[in-house]
Amino acid sequence: MNRDSNDTQPVKLTGEEIAKHNSRESCWVIVHGRAYDVTEFLPEHPGGPKIILKYAGKDATEEYEPIHPPDTLEKYLDKSKHLGEVDMGTVEVEEKEVDPDEEDRQKRIARMPILEQCYNLMDFEAVARSVMKKTAWAYYSSGADDEITMRENHNAFHKIWFRPRILVDVEKVDISTTMLGTKVDMPFYVTATALGKLGHPEGEVILTRGASKHNVIQMIPTLASCSFDEIMDAAQDGQCQWLQLYVNKDRKVTRRIVEHAEKRGCKGLFITVDAPQLGRREKDMRSKFSDVGSSVQSSSGGEVDRSQGAARAISSFIDPSLSWKDIPWFQSITKMPIILKGVQCVEDVLRAVEAGVQGVVLSNHGGRQLDTAPSAIEVLAEVMPALRERGWQDRIEVYIDGGVRRATDILKAICLGAKGVGIGRPFLYAMSAYGLPGVDRAMQLLRDEMEMNMRLIGASDISQLNPTLLDTRGLSMHTAVVPSDTLGKNVYDPLVGPKEKAKL
Amino acid sequence: MNRDSNDTQPVKLTGEEIAKHNSRESCWVIVHGRAYDVTEFLPEHPGGPKIILKYAGKDATEEYEPIHPPDTLEKYLDKSKHLGEVDMGTVEVEEKEVDPDEEDRQKRIARMPILEQCYNLMDFEAVARSVMKKTAWAYYSSGADDEITMRENHNAFHKIWFRPRILVDVEKVDISTTMLGTKVDMPFYVTATALGKLGHPEGEVILTRGASKHNVIQMIPTLASCSFDEIMDAAQDGQCQWLQLYVNKDRKVTRRIVEHAEKRGCKGLFITVDAPQLGRREKDMRSKFSDVGSSVQSSSGGEVDRSQGAARAISSFIDPSLSWKDIPWFQSITKMPIILKGVQCVEDVLRAVEAGVQGVVLSNHGGRQLDTAPSAIEVLAEVMPALRERGWQDRIEVYIDGGVRRATDILKAICLGAKGVGIGRPFLYAMSAYGLPGVDRAMQLLRDEMEMNMRLIGASDISQLNPTLLDTRGLSMHTAVVPSDTLGKNVYDPLVGPKEKAKL
Amino acid sequence: MNRDSNDTQPVKLTGEEIAKHNSRESCWVIVHGRAYDVTEFLPEHPGGPKIILKYAGKDATEEYEPIHPPDTLEKYLDKSKHLGEVDMGTVEVEEKEVDPDEEDRQKRIARMPILEQCYNLMDFEAVARSVMKKTAWAYYSSGADDEITMRENHNAFHKIWFRPRILVDVEKVDISTTMLGTKVDMPFYVTATALGKLGHPEGEVILTRGASKHNVIQMIPTLASCSFDEIMDAAQDGQCQWLQLYVNKDRKVTRRIVEHAEKRGCKGLFITVDAPQLGRREKDMRSKFSDVGSSVQSSSGGEVDRSQGAARAISSFIDPSLSWKDIPWFQSITKMPIILKGVQCVEDVLRAVEAGVQGVVLSNHGGRQLDTAPSAIEVLAEVMPALRERGWQDRIEVYIDGGVRRATDILKAICLGAKGVGIGRPFLYAMSAYGLPGVDRAMQLLRDEMEMNMRLIGASDISQLNPTLLDTRGLSMHTAVVPSDTLGKNVYDPLVGPKEKAKL
Amino acid sequence: MNRDSNDTQPVKLTGEEIAKHNSRESCWVIVHGRAYDVTEFLPEHPGGPKIILKYAGKDATEEYEPIHPPDTLEKYLDKSKHLGEVDMGTVEVEEKEVDPDEEDRQKRIARMPILEQCYNLMDFEAVARSVMKKTAWAYYSSGADDEITMRENHNAFHKIWFRPRILVDVEKVDISTTMLGTKVDMPFYVTATALGKLGHPEGEVILTRGASKHNVIQMIPTLASCSFDEIMDAAQDGQCQWLQLYVNKDRKVTRRIVEHAEKRGCKGLFITVDAPQLGRREKDMRSKFSDVGSSVQSSSGGEVDRSQGAARAISSFIDPSLSWKDIPWFQSITKMPIILKGVQCVEDVLRAVEAGVQGVVLSNHGGRQLDTAPSAIEVLAEVMPALRERGWQDRIEVYIDGGVRRATDILKAICLGAKGVGIGRPFLYAMSAYGLPGVDRAMQLLRDEMEMNMRLIGASDISQLNPTLLDTRGLSMHTAVVPSDTLGKNVYDPLVGPKEKAKL
Repeated sequence: MNRDSNDTQPVKLTGEEIAKHNSRESCWVIVHGRAYDVTEFLPEHPGGPKIILKYAGKDATEEYEPIHPPDTLEKYLDKSKHLGEVDMGTVEVEEKEVDPDEEDRQKRIARMPILEQCYNLMDFEAVARSVMKKTAWAYYSSGADDEITMRENHNAFHKIWFRPRILVDVEKVDISTTMLGTKVDMPFYVTATALGKLGHPEGEVILTRGASKHNVIQMIPTLASCSFDEIMDAAQDGQCQWLQLYVNKDRKVTRRIVEHAEKRGCKGLFITVDAPQLGRREKDMRSKFSDVGSSVQSSSGGEVDRSQGAARAISSFIDPSLSWKDIPWFQSITKMPIILKGVQCVEDVLRAVEAGVQGVVLSNHGGRQLDTAPSAIEVLAEVMPALRERGWQDRIEVYIDGGVRRATDILKAICLGAKGVGIGRPFLYAMSAYGLPGVDRAMQLLRDEMEMNMRLIGASDISQLNPTLLDTRGLSMHTAVVPSDTLGKNVYDPLVGPKEKAKL
Repeated sequence: MNRDSNDTQPVKLTGEEIAKHNSRESCWVIVHGRAYDVTEFLPEHPGGPKIILKYAGKDATEEYEPIHPPDTLEKYLDKSKHLGEVDMGTVEVEEKEVDPDEEDRQKRIARMPILEQCYNLMDFEAVARSVMKKTAWAYYSSGADDEITMRENHNAFHKIWFRPRILVDVEKVDISTTMLGTKVDMPFYVTATALGKLGHPEGEVILTRGASKHNVIQMIPTLASCSFDEIMDAAQDGQCQWLQLYVNKDRKVTRRIVEHAEKRGCKGLFITVDAPQLGRREKDMRSKFSDVGSSVQSSSGGEVDRSQGAARAISSFIDPSLSWKDIPWFQSITKMPIILKGVQCVEDVLRAVEAGVQGVVLSNHGGRQLDTAPSAIEVLAEVMPALRERGWQDRIEVYIDGGVRRATDILKAICLGAKGVGIGRPFLYAMSAYGLPGVDRAMQLLRDEMEMNMRLIGASDISQLNPTLLDTRGLSMHTAVVPSDTLGKNVYDPLVGPKEKAKL
Repeated sequence: MNRDSNDTQPVKLTGEEIAKHNSRESCWVIVHGRAYDVTEFLPEHPGGPKIILKYAGKDATEEYEPIHPPDTLEKYLDKSKHLGEVDMGTVEVEEKEVDPDEEDRQKRIARMPILEQCYNLMDFEAVARSVMKKTAWAYYSSGADDEITMRENHNAFHKIWFRPRILVDVEKVDISTTMLGTKVDMPFYVTATALGKLGHPEGEVILTRGASKHNVIQMIPTLASCSFDEIMDAAQDGQCQWLQLYVNKDRKVTRRIVEHAEKRGCKGLFITVDAPQLGRREKDMRSKFSDVGSSVQSSSGGEVDRSQGAARAISSFIDPSLSWKDIPWFQSITKMPIILKGVQCVEDVLRAVEAGVQGVVLSNHGGRQLDTAPSAIEVLAEVMPALRERGWQDRIEVYIDGGVRRATDILKAICLGAKGVGIGRPFLYAMSAYGLPGVDRAMQLLRDEMEMNMRLIGASDISQLNPTLLDTRGLSMHTAVVPSDTLGKNVYDPLVGPKEKAKL
Repeated sequence: MNRDSNDTQPVKLTGEEIAKHNSRESCWVIVHGRAYDVTEFLPEHPGGPKIILKYAGKDATEEYEPIHPPDTLEKYLDKSKHLGEVDMGTVEVEEKEVDPDEEDRQKRIARMPILEQCYNLMDFEAVARSVMKKTAWAYYSSGADDEITMRENHNAFHKIWFRPRILVDVEKVDISTTMLGTKVDMPFYVTATALGKLGHPEGEVILTRGASKHNVIQMIPTLASCSFDEIMDAAQDGQCQWLQLYVNKDRKVTRRIVEHAEKRGCKGLFITVDAPQLGRREKDMRSKFSDVGSSVQSSSGGEVDRSQGAARAISSFIDPSLSWKDIPWFQSITKMPIILKGVQCVEDVLRAVEAGVQGVVLSNHGGRQLDTAPSAIEVLAEVMPALRERGWQDRIEVYIDGGVRRATDILKAICLGAKGVGIGRPFLYAMSAYGLPGVDRAMQLLRDEMEMNMRLIGASDISQLNPTLLDTRGLSMHTAVVPSDTLGKNVYDPLVGPKEKAKL
């Protein structure tokens, strides 16, 4: 780790001194034992000034840590504002108020089910929901608007039914495949998700280790809590990683990131194209509100407006003007295969082929961007026939993500023609609840399910999966039933079974 | 304000004197500090005599105020019955019984969420439901019969899915458009809704101010609590307003209203065609019943029958014989564009084009008239192709209203070909809960949502919205699922996740 | 009332004497103050011997009354077993055990809503459910098997949507029509339902009076609690009544009934063809069980089996061999128009035309016979086009019944081509809860709804109702959604609105 | 019963002696009064060593009994490990801890409804759920993954509607038919289900006796709790039984089983083809976990993994390499008709015809194998037209199983062309709750329902059932509704009926 220039001063700052700078007029904060003058930075803070002012003159490390990569202050705060080391012994340790929610959470943690009680990916989600901090859970679990797309993502898989084959020799089942030329043990990858330290103090490197153990690929997020290099460093020799990229308005920054990633050995550049602006996630916004909003008065509305959840805060750099015209530039600065992440209709997949990119990820960003955008699996069912019709199916690799929870979900995508599927939240939940062993078990469970399901479908390797193994007729039926007749329902006496004897 | 002729008498009436006239035989009431003899008017009162008799000999202002425009007594009660000013000091102030419902409501008001906690239009509805008077809420929120159409209006939007485009430059997004030649900042208008003072003491003028702030059009309702002129007077210079018209059996009255509106600068005449009779809204009727019905005996059935909710009472003047034959007459008395409000099938839209009107509003009156009438958005999806087929799409402007709660709803309508959408209840709820700041924030939230959604759809201005951005296959599927098998459901043991340890 | 032969004996029987005959070996019972020796009849009792033995040696009037027409003992018990009058003063009045269910019911009756609080037909059902005896409610409200068809009957109407017309002169609306040549004020009739005295001590004559008041037709049930003549006698001059007929295995009985009905002036003969055997209604069977079954031991299973609800008991005479071959015989014995009640598919309607009958009632017997039989309205939508295709639409009148609760339901049926609809349970519920005033109000509410709905659809008389006013695309979609993913649902955190402040 | 060789030793073993061998190093257990040395067998135990170690040095009979056929130790444990008889008087009787769950269950058993209160097959399931041991219930009732297919199996029948015929002479109704040449009284058979003693101490022989009484066929499961011969021995003269076969990796074992079955008189060989590996049933796995897992520590994960429910444990012998190539071999070793059980798509049915087998059972193994595999009834609706198109409908008999609960379900399958349907769980539940009388009544109820439904459909014998009696349009619509809009739902005020008076 580099040390910054102010670091040479011989005398450490004292808590008492820092405590004086506790106002909008002069605002110092401590992070990881060092003090920073953020007075001028206040209005620029993507998360709004209020949350910083809460820690004015105090130690902000605990709040700061999970939502800022370690090099943030280096990058974004002028060196002159780095005030140097603090004698932490002199900093008054704030007695935390007893937070009844947190007390309850600690009790739930103490009663956590043991890892072996998790039999599927939903189980990790159930445990994570119970033991994660409310704001972290809100950030991970929230979706756009009414969260219709977010739920549809998972539901859509259930509208596809299998047409299994019998009497196929399935003694040996091989679920390995290749993605962008890399051999992997299972047809899924760990997709990019932001702010891993909200769920676990070590952050994304845990996913790196899990991916290594099961020989699947990890996609490194731009908005990771760990720095890019930390995540690369955590990889094993020969472990394949990809880079997810939010394109910065400042293309020099973007170029630096891409070139650095290629140099460090990234094997794919996944450009996010479904997020010119990061979505409104009301669950997340509400959670923020209750976090910092208790003292907020109606009159101070203007400021509160900026507390719109973690992601919106840290994403203000994303370039909404990114367009097809920029693709050649990316092709000029890297030799990594380029994949567009977030494609959502057939027309754009065809255009991507014409633009010469190596792949697309059909995705609606986990239901976090545009509500009532279609599920990736439904788009896939339209895309592949269109590609095959043109003989283009081998000119591009098609991936999907969103809503994958079961091995059957993965197999359905592969049957339809996907090269692989991305899984995000489930591994975050496994990590948040149980750390690396959780991620390990989650992947092992997927493997167990997948090997069995291959047998039950009647396929002994990935190449045998094809559309005739599926019935997709229900997929495009977006029905909403006629609103129920309440009065009619209320007067109906539901049937009941035999009654127990009243007494013995 | 004009003073009426009886006003010149030197001596004020006393409460004692008025209190004597407390029966069906002689019934005086006080409204706004003046006394009126309504004995002969009793049988004609659209809301039935019972509610007046409740205030016979007493001050009826509080009950009277929200459901009568200020010029009602002027217009409908003969001057000879205006008894003059009352010395209000002599009127016995009735000690109100403690109403536990009202006490609870006051407690809920005290605990109301602050405005910034409202993140979408449904939030205002949630707050309004909690803090509004029960009868007012019942009037605003009720629909026809089983309220199937009312709920379908909102649900129908969810059956339409987006087909978003990526890599479009959406740095700048312009959501302004024009309606009937008027430039507006957003593609919605405040549609006409009756009895604004039920929700807020100032009534419809609050909506006028909100519309002005965001440069959107307000449609002025015939059945407003404020008088037409009050609402016009509340507008800013250059602010565009339209007139919603219930056609009176007495065409002279209608002509006077239309000519007056045109003279005052109204820019559109929206003739309501879906309400030859105002609908039965049972929720509203039940709320009325419990309001005035506690002392009602079974034997007096005849009178109770007239207490069928506010709207039915005040709408008896509407002409059920209005027909296509009347359109030329309207065209002869005004130069305002004429729009038919409440069209519900393709055939009638085509006929409207042939009749030479300037627009139609596809609407089922907010689900308040005919139950199981289709949602406007579904009708729109049938209407626009029929117009385009005939090359008529520019001969008429098509609007829709009903069920709009999200910017995505608006964008779906615009994609299908609507010129704009009307929004009614949501703004009433915002107003009822928070007054003008509520309406302001509601409109701001729509703007925030809409700009973001434009970006996520891949459109930088309204002209880019078109039907290929939508998947409407689910729209016409009015499915009702097979009634569930209760016994089968009851014996099924639902899956559960991992169990917490029983003890620590 | 006729007096029977044994009646001439001078001395009345005493309670003490009768009480001795309290066993299977000698079983006397008192009904309406007269004693009967039913020892030999025990094994023949359609309801099983157990229920009679419960009253052996006692007064059975209260139990007997509602489920036996007054002439039952005359008809079915040999005169020699009529023991004559009883001195009721000598009969020990049994102290009834306090039945907590009955006490609760009495409390509910005391708190019954007043009639004016019923705003639609479902409201009567709600009240009836609350105030009726449990067994009576079970008999009226139960359906076959899982009651899927019973509920579908009502739901199916909601899958049909209107396509209303505007700007039609609807000042005057005429909802009168004709059925089998009789002019009626509204397009519905009171269909036949059994055992009216279970709901109200006066039984079916109340429906006769209600039908008279509103000039609609009543269909007299074979299984009425009142005798046929009582119901005819209750009619006003010129009031039209029809006869519903269960065909007896003994055709002489059938012939006597039909000829008598014609002589008394019945205007239509509705032969029930959907009930070769009366359905298993488990709700009804369970209610019987708990009624008489408390002392039942597992070992006595054989006898309990016969307590299968009221209708099965009294219907053992119905001829399951009835077939198309019998139709000419009916045509030979009566000049009344013959209508087949309970037709359920297009093929059989066509055959009915060929057989020369005057009408059909599409019906599944209120969902009480075959479960997952289709709703009548759905069958109607298939039948009418088939008739029109052959030019047969005027050769037969088509009626439907089942699930009608709203005027919109009736209008939908008429639009599709039905001549009228039968309504059964709703009037039973209105009668059970409020007697004649209930039936009267129920019919008045239907009239109010229907006149308004005619206006809102844009039709001023019945002849204007036609299929283009409807969208029936959803009608044939019998969807059952994919079973929900419980684990996925459980881990989803539903959205919530703004939170109230915790404290003031 | 044979006596094993060690049995000749004169002195019985004592409890004290056995108790010393209570560890992994030396592990003896008592079963049915005889001791066995299972030390070396521990690692091979299909259910894992943990469960055995729990009984090391103790009497394991109670745990062992229901999940091992009586000849298991004979077959799988080398004779040298059979230690001989134990003097049970010397074995310390373990005082069982009071298990509150078991106490509750005993109370529920005491209050069990009497048999006559069960009116349909679901009722037995309701009672069984209440009175069975939790682990036994979990084993019987569980399905694969999210149990979507398991529930769909039953639901699918509800998507098929009848098109009943009237005026057919149905006085006499004959529901007998033939299956593989055997005359049976009803068109269903008792299909094979494993581990009958989990539900009832006598096990599968109870089903044998029930099947005999009603003259229906029983299919004998490979994984029965009773031995094959016990089940054959329980049959009456002339009673028809079939053999369900899991094919062993060791074909010599398979050959022995098949030849023995044929010799003993089995009339059909049903080869299970949908279970190359037995499914993951999480409900079952979780129930196991809580049973033996309370002392399990997170660190011992490896071993716990093997406790994956009873069936997986005992099924490790099944050959996953079984393929079409093996069919001729089966045809060479037996003259019994060969039926493939578990076919799931049209293609494989056609292939089965070509392979010359006598029948197929369309089945997804009761929803216990591959989740989102289609219901058998839906596959049947596709299979039969494909067979008829080729004129192959008489070359093969088609059966289905899964989800059958009502006679209407059976009739729908027969109408579509099935020769018969298999029923499994319902008879297990009837047996578990009430023993043989339960099974008897369950079959009788099906007969009652079926005779009535035949009448109501208008068919007097099985040959009259055909596809025109059904409407199957809804069958292929696997809809999942658009996820509901929670906020919108939350703010909607449901309609309510008339309110009771607050006080009297």
